[in-house]
Amino acid sequence: MARIGEAALLELAARALRGRRVSPEHAEAAARILVTGDLLGVHTHGVERVSSYADRVASGGINAGARINVERVAPALARVDGNNGIGPAVGMRALREAMAIARDQGVGVALARNSNHFGAVAPYSLIGAEAGFASVIGSNASTTIAPTGGREARVGNSPIAFCVPHPGARPFLLDMALSVVARAKIRAAARHGSAIPDTWATDRDGKATTDPKAALDGFLLPIGAHKGYGLALAVDLFAGLLSDAAYLTHARSWQEQPDEPSGLGHFFILIDAKRLGGEAWLAGRMTDFARILHDTPPADPSQPVRVPGEIELGNLELQRREGIEIEDAVLERLRALAR
Amino acid sequence: MARIGEAALLELAARALRGRRVSPEHAEAAARILVTGDLLGVHTHGVERVSSYADRVASGGINAGARINVERVAPALARVDGNNGIGPAVGMRALREAMAIARDQGVGVALARNSNHFGAVAPYSLIGAEAGFASVIGSNASTTIAPTGGREARVGNSPIAFCVPHPGARPFLLDMALSVVARAKIRAAARHGSAIPDTWATDRDGKATTDPKAALDGFLLPIGAHKGYGLALAVDLFAGLLSDAAYLTHARSWQEQPDEPSGLGHFFILIDAKRLGGEAWLAGRMTDFARILHDTPPADPSQPVRVPGEIELGNLELQRREGIEIEDAVLERLRALAR
Repeated sequence: MARIGEAALLELAARALRGRRVSPEHAEAAARILVTGDLLGVHTHGVERVSSYADRVASGGINAGARINVERVAPALARVDGNNGIGPAVGMRALREAMAIARDQGVGVALARNSNHFGAVAPYSLIGAEAGFASVIGSNASTTIAPTGGREARVGNSPIAFCVPHPGARPFLLDMALSVVARAKIRAAARHGSAIPDTWATDRDGKATTDPKAALDGFLLPIGAHKGYGLALAVDLFAGLLSDAAYLTHARSWQEQPDEPSGLGHFFILIDAKRLGGEAWLAGRMTDFARILHDTPPADPSQPVRVPGEIELGNLELQRREGIEIEDAVLERLRALAR
Repeated sequence: MARIGEAALLELAARALRGRRVSPEHAEAAARILVTGDLLGVHTHGVERVSSYADRVASGGINAGARINVERVAPALARVDGNNGIGPAVGMRALREAMAIARDQGVGVALARNSNHFGAVAPYSLIGAEAGFASVIGSNASTTIAPTGGREARVGNSPIAFCVPHPGARPFLLDMALSVVARAKIRAAARHGSAIPDTWATDRDGKATTDPKAALDGFLLPIGAHKGYGLALAVDLFAGLLSDAAYLTHARSWQEQPDEPSGLGHFFILIDAKRLGGEAWLAGRMTDFARILHDTPPADPSQPVRVPGEIELGNLELQRREGIEIEDAVLERLRALAR
């Protein structure tokens, strides 16, 4: 593992994208979102993605010279057309619009279309929280999940995040996809030859399985069976259908069709918490909220109860101080791209 | 089972509450929400609740003469103080405010506090959808779930609903609480002496259990373990904390402390879908969305893939035509109250 400072990693990532003719502003947005992913310890959504973004720009899958268009369709509601630009640039433009609206109107909603993979959701949530906004933010994704009772992938494992600011302390931050586990966990079980719980995945015929190899040929299961299936659809409806983006099987996979626009959509719902009470009011309530949870008697005394986001925000604080830990190979590839 | 027409059941429920000095307007709101619960087939949140609402009014737990106050804190954001009124009256007032705001601003958010059990969420979602609004609506609830890794109930099994209108057809309607199953399912397993999956509940020490009796002494598990725990907290933050209502252990149980205000909160996020495109645009996309899901090859050919809300909306259409099926005992109690 290598360790690198935040500013240096930001510049490397941005330079790698500028070298592919991505505009400085869009490259900087993408670097900011991906480096924040690394800071949070979510390396699957960190600068490791720069090479696939750069490849897709090179092959024309992503539009390096995208002109993002914002249309205010109502005082509190905007639509953002990403013009097939790099995902985090579209996401950041939509986030900024939703924040500006929420500052004026108390609530701001931006729905983005013609976008691509936009990184993790948490970085957007954090930028919102730092400016005093509570948020619900989500994106759709190409299909990897079968509908409950089905045996064909027709739903994306769409991420959604909820965030509430905590003035002077760590916000509440829940950023999650809707499968029980990521595919990587099933791959690990297959490597170790161990069985998996029958709630993780189905085989290719849509039947629950404990065999990791059959699961890798099949489909991830959503949390709570039909409940998680419903949630994944809800995220797709707000991020994809209402935004006029692609949805369900219309969204293209960046892995299988990298040379084509993904057509993804995102939604940003921002609420200005300052309109609801002063900073002391909010800080007092958020502190009490976390205290009630932390004070819960634990089932295992060595494992205290946590509040969502604590681990990731702890990573962020540590890595801002001591540098970001990155796999050598990822850093090498990034340096090569930036040259 | 008895069968009764919608209008007759509405009048019975409203009369029962008016007889406890609940204002005609509030009694009608409560009747409308609870009867819609029955129409949808969600009888646990139907007129069966009238007797507990009436008891709580009689004992002073709910304020029969509540004056609900609405404060517009920003152009698109309202706070609603329920004055400890009957829950559905507070909920309906907040819903109407959020719809009125969304009609003007494109988006409307109402946060309600000093409320009580407000019925199922789906009836509010449906009223919004009939008027052309997509919505995210939720309520907090008194604590029945232990935080992940904890062994004390500190989180409510809070319901949340997502709804998107489908002009001329059934809306998408997902209304769910965040436990894997309702306690009633565990009670049924205990009666039959059968084991339960270890993902449903923990024993009183917070350890996952397959013994339904140990589970009934313990805690319901949320969907997706820490993910559902996080979702339950997110709903409580928007419905309870940001609204200035009670949250987590501060919310009182209507069963254990019926004579005291519950202090619950609700949130209503409404988006005017008409600002995003015409009815034909939305209907075309929603029809295509449902078709993609329905056309999924099923794992079991006798069980076609469904879209959330289909069963409940089918119940509603059937029972509007043929009358509402109600347990004799529930109807008898309601008639006695209405006398």
